[in-house]
Amino acid sequence: MSKKVTPRSQDYSRWYTDVVQRAELADYAPVKGCMVIRPYGYALWENIQEALDRRFKATGVQNAYFPLFIPYSLIEKEAEHVEGFAPQLAVVTHGGGEKLEEPLVVRPTSETIINTMFSQWIQSYRDLPMLLNQWCNVVRWEMRTRLFLRTTEFLWQEGHTAHVTAEEADARARQMLDVYTDFAVNDTAIPVVPGRKSDSERFAGAVRSYTIEAMMGDLRALQAGSSHFLGQNFARVFGTQYLDPDNQLQHVWQTSWGVSTRMVGAMVMVHGDDQGLILPPRLAPTQVIVVPIGRGDEGAEARAAAHALADDLRVPGVRVHVDDREEYTPGWKFNEWEMKGVPLRIEIGPRDLAAGQVVLVRRDTGEKAPVPLASLGERVPALLDDIQRALLDRARAFRDAHTHQVADYAEFQRVIEDPGGFIAAPWCGDAECEAAIKDDTKATIRCIPFEAPGAAGVCMRCGEPAVEQAVFARAY
Amino acid sequence: MSKKVTPRSQDYSRWYTDVVQRAELADYAPVKGCMVIRPYGYALWENIQEALDRRFKATGVQNAYFPLFIPYSLIEKEAEHVEGFAPQLAVVTHGGGEKLEEPLVVRPTSETIINTMFSQWIQSYRDLPMLLNQWCNVVRWEMRTRLFLRTTEFLWQEGHTAHVTAEEADARARQMLDVYTDFAVNDTAIPVVPGRKSDSERFAGAVRSYTIEAMMGDLRALQAGSSHFLGQNFARVFGTQYLDPDNQLQHVWQTSWGVSTRMVGAMVMVHGDDQGLILPPRLAPTQVIVVPIGRGDEGAEARAAAHALADDLRVPGVRVHVDDREEYTPGWKFNEWEMKGVPLRIEIGPRDLAAGQVVLVRRDTGEKAPVPLASLGERVPALLDDIQRALLDRARAFRDAHTHQVADYAEFQRVIEDPGGFIAAPWCGDAECEAAIKDDTKATIRCIPFEAPGAAGVCMRCGEPAVEQAVFARAY
Repeated sequence: MSKKVTPRSQDYSRWYTDVVQRAELADYAPVKGCMVIRPYGYALWENIQEALDRRFKATGVQNAYFPLFIPYSLIEKEAEHVEGFAPQLAVVTHGGGEKLEEPLVVRPTSETIINTMFSQWIQSYRDLPMLLNQWCNVVRWEMRTRLFLRTTEFLWQEGHTAHVTAEEADARARQMLDVYTDFAVNDTAIPVVPGRKSDSERFAGAVRSYTIEAMMGDLRALQAGSSHFLGQNFARVFGTQYLDPDNQLQHVWQTSWGVSTRMVGAMVMVHGDDQGLILPPRLAPTQVIVVPIGRGDEGAEARAAAHALADDLRVPGVRVHVDDREEYTPGWKFNEWEMKGVPLRIEIGPRDLAAGQVVLVRRDTGEKAPVPLASLGERVPALLDDIQRALLDRARAFRDAHTHQVADYAEFQRVIEDPGGFIAAPWCGDAECEAAIKDDTKATIRCIPFEAPGAAGVCMRCGEPAVEQAVFARAY
Repeated sequence: MSKKVTPRSQDYSRWYTDVVQRAELADYAPVKGCMVIRPYGYALWENIQEALDRRFKATGVQNAYFPLFIPYSLIEKEAEHVEGFAPQLAVVTHGGGEKLEEPLVVRPTSETIINTMFSQWIQSYRDLPMLLNQWCNVVRWEMRTRLFLRTTEFLWQEGHTAHVTAEEADARARQMLDVYTDFAVNDTAIPVVPGRKSDSERFAGAVRSYTIEAMMGDLRALQAGSSHFLGQNFARVFGTQYLDPDNQLQHVWQTSWGVSTRMVGAMVMVHGDDQGLILPPRLAPTQVIVVPIGRGDEGAEARAAAHALADDLRVPGVRVHVDDREEYTPGWKFNEWEMKGVPLRIEIGPRDLAAGQVVLVRRDTGEKAPVPLASLGERVPALLDDIQRALLDRARAFRDAHTHQVADYAEFQRVIEDPGGFIAAPWCGDAECEAAIKDDTKATIRCIPFEAPGAAGVCMRCGEPAVEQAVFARAY
């Protein structure tokens, strides 16, 4: 199989799919809209899971597991929720060879089944807060799918919490968005814009939704994670109540929050180039690839040295792999590991060895430099930190360069078409105005950023007084 | 809620369900046959996953993820496979509001969908062996269910490998059974009998199935893990082929192997008692519970000392929790943590502190002894090792005491009825004879142990020459 991918400039969408497949992150499944996550992609997901799970547990969250199937009567209970998810449901009608009395929905998200259990487990204010998370698969029927970004089945985590007060619940929703922001910025090296969703973009059943929005390489926005303050919407219909210290029954206040395998697609699109993936060192399954040069006896010494230096690098915890396969040329291997986005390459041949050095190559910049063997233990971890920082800096500069302020709606329409990107603009807060902008331009409000300049002046479209500053973009 | 459970001697089955629910391992879901795994049960499952995953990866296995849904036409391809699983399938007939052209099966196991992908990924002998595993949920429609032991949906891992030769594949199936045996014996403290399944108990589609069989507290057998040599059965119908070094197309030889959340149920039944769970230290989410004695100001010093000693124990990696809740009495807490099976309890009160000691209580034996505070760092890890060993020894002695040899079929029928347990007996190897034994006694061949005395003499039932020694039991 040729390792060349369609250039980004030629067809961004094909470039994306080419990279995902050629880097062996994922493949199409024989089921419409579904994908197979291959070992390299899954190793990346395992690192994402570990990085998030650690952060969740540090805030007191515990993992649990709720059923895949939800009786239709449960999903129907919260009116806005079922209205939002009904068009996307997969329905089991037969089990064990018989037609079921009541059809079962394959979970698209678990608020309903979790409230059914919360209403049994929560009795007293002493049981609160209840802070649970589950790592699982969910199914949302999709017509137009794309590997990692939008598939009928995907993997995610969904957190669900219950609290005594509205303030505590809302603070928890904000706290989990902070966790997502910290993870996105520091681990995926993606600079995100955290903010609140407009009402029309709220999660079905939520009072308020928060989001982190990232800019992809084609200037479109991607929602990379979200958290929701659910108020008492689910608690009321499921009777999720507790006895307060005065022995009065009260409904709990709730949140939910999720990040999915979509995050893998975001990393591909933000960091990748025409040679393939570029993975941030913190999450890369392999951080350093070592390629010994020279075949057979000629290369024996280099191979031994490669394994020895790899062993040394593993001591401080560097994830390193030696590619000593004899059936491939060094050039072929360089391309292969560039495609897979390994942050650092170490080349070591007989002449390098004689000089007591190796050649270090950065995936992100292509910089190539001889480095004394003896200093690798210091240089490699420092370089990995450098690359992590450089990827974030580059992505931030790219995003900032493509974030615009506009004076009026005419300019908005021009800019969204060309060059595109994020547009920050004052807005009246009216859903009809928002819908008109979407109809005209295909741009939606990605979020009302937490850190936005106050909304002076008037709505950029309708001229009514502005209530807030919103970030608009075309989105995935 | 009363923390008392039904005594084992009174109703073993109710005892089991009581313990699982009162220890908050799991709960019934509002979906027939499904369960919710609660945080304490899920923490145990996470430890099981970690212990197995580490062993898998050490043998070169990589994780991946395959779709939940399998088109019906795929599951039908291997005749014996679909015959075995058809009665247990859950079928999705509608998606996105429309009737599907082809119904989708919710995976009961993934040989068929994985072979579909293997047939694309495997081209050359250089691609072999392919060694994959996935952690996922599967669905098998069940009429009579029991928490952890038999539920419509359960969590498991399923390994799938492809090889160049039959010998290599069979050796891999045996290797993974060795991994399961090592895990069962050393981590779950359950002494298992590893062996081969009789043909009638083979996995649907396998050439040969291997199993580890454990004896539960009620003397019934439980299959705790299995691995299968699939031959070329799936490879032939899915066209999973590779080019050998002579450029000839060859079908691969395959294996599959799995362990599920059932393992949690096995630990409950093997180690638990009328006070609740007893967890093996290696897998216990909390290994040591520290209970400071004394409320308010009186207990302040004990609470501070409790947290200090817990911090000290965490340094060498002991999983320790301090229960300093003020709203419960020490006695209530002792019962609670006994129910949850925490291996070691440390009680620390003002008088203990004055004497520079604490009280250490073992969950498995109830032994209670004062221990100098200064020696805890040494004593606790040693005691945890002791408990781990003692649980295995006790379970092995129990199993051996309830494993019988019989002279003839009359004795077999008497013993299987009372006292029950495992019966090792020579067998003719004939499936009809095996079926007659099952009809007569409800006992099945659990396995033909790898380490069995040779089969001298005649079949204990039919008197024909014996071909091997089998272990019979009534089973879950």
